[in-house]
Amino acid sequence: MADPKTPEPSRRSERSRQAILTAAVELVGEVGYARLTVEAIAARAGVGKQTIYRWWPSKGAVVLDAFVELSGGNQPAALPDTGNLKSDLRAVLRATVQELTDPRFEVPSRALTAESQSDPALAQQFVEAVLRPHLRAVQERLRSAQQAGQVAKGVDLDVAVELLVGPLFHRWLLRTAPLTSAYADTVVDLVIAALRPLPKGR
Amino acid sequence: MADPKTPEPSRRSERSRQAILTAAVELVGEVGYARLTVEAIAARAGVGKQTIYRWWPSKGAVVLDAFVELSGGNQPAALPDTGNLKSDLRAVLRATVQELTDPRFEVPSRALTAESQSDPALAQQFVEAVLRPHLRAVQERLRSAQQAGQVAKGVDLDVAVELLVGPLFHRWLLRTAPLTSAYADTVVDLVIAALRPLPKGR
Repeated sequence: MADPKTPEPSRRSERSRQAILTAAVELVGEVGYARLTVEAIAARAGVGKQTIYRWWPSKGAVVLDAFVELSGGNQPAALPDTGNLKSDLRAVLRATVQELTDPRFEVPSRALTAESQSDPALAQQFVEAVLRPHLRAVQERLRSAQQAGQVAKGVDLDVAVELLVGPLFHRWLLRTAPLTSAYADTVVDLVIAALRPLPKGR
Repeated sequence: MADPKTPEPSRRSERSRQAILTAAVELVGEVGYARLTVEAIAARAGVGKQTIYRWWPSKGAVVLDAFVELSGGNQPAALPDTGNLKSDLRAVLRATVQELTDPRFEVPSRALTAESQSDPALAQQFVEAVLRPHLRAVQERLRSAQQAGQVAKGVDLDVAVELLVGPLFHRWLLRTAPLTSAYADTVVDLVIAALRPLPKGR
């Protein structure tokens, strides 16, 4: 519900912004990133092209913001911490599988990943706005497991996070095999085995 | 050296094929995949556009073949098997890091990975011609380690291979942090810990 104290022009701006972001996500899905144009986004959103260029420098920037919005903003919730590392990590990796195989996320994710290969500025924004907050949340969960003695003291948690998410990303992006919850569970089990402290006396 | 028994037209064909593949790799590096055209490849190689279309259906197919050629063909050597799993895997992952950070490989690799996101046929050819033979070679080394009792019997080797290469691919493609030999070594050490058989009596 609109705040009655918000001045009219700012409410209109927010409506336009939302319409633009929605149009960008829809159109990436319909025509693909390569054939997407700022003109088409403007037409679908019912705004002028100049309105888009006032807020975003490029179509890549619009798609990135649309994607951040779709992912629930760039402050992901902290991971659950039930004390059970295996079930917490399985939950987060299964959710990742679900997101990566949901066409609403998959199409703009692939588009942004592809475009990032030839656009280093977009690549950096994509990593910082979308990926890094997620990696940090996983890392925090591993840090709490390390403090609880479930992860060996010497483990580099930057590497541990990529050991978890890298195999999912590899299978998804390169389509080496179907990306399933069973695969996510197996990755979690292997990574937990990799990180566990050596038993005393060995 | 040309075989004197090879008829002249076939020698000329092979020279043209090589010139086209070399031109494709050079031009991807110079102008990027998006701005690469079959016309430009033909001009650089000194052949007509029709010569290229006689052998390849698209620029993606040319770049893919050029890349396979650059990687030493699609029959990679088997991995070394010294009996020491850690040093054999470190050698192969360090070589992967070197290849992925060598501009001659990196530029066409990123171009093909990006293009594969919107071209499923190219994606499948890329995986089968370039990636799968490499994954199979790593898997064979893990299978021999499994037979030698260095890898637990129940481990799914399809997953184990992606546990090794996925974290490298993730860091490389998304540029989350510098891709170094030290990172490769840490990944190997963690994966070996993940795969090891449980000690008897536990």
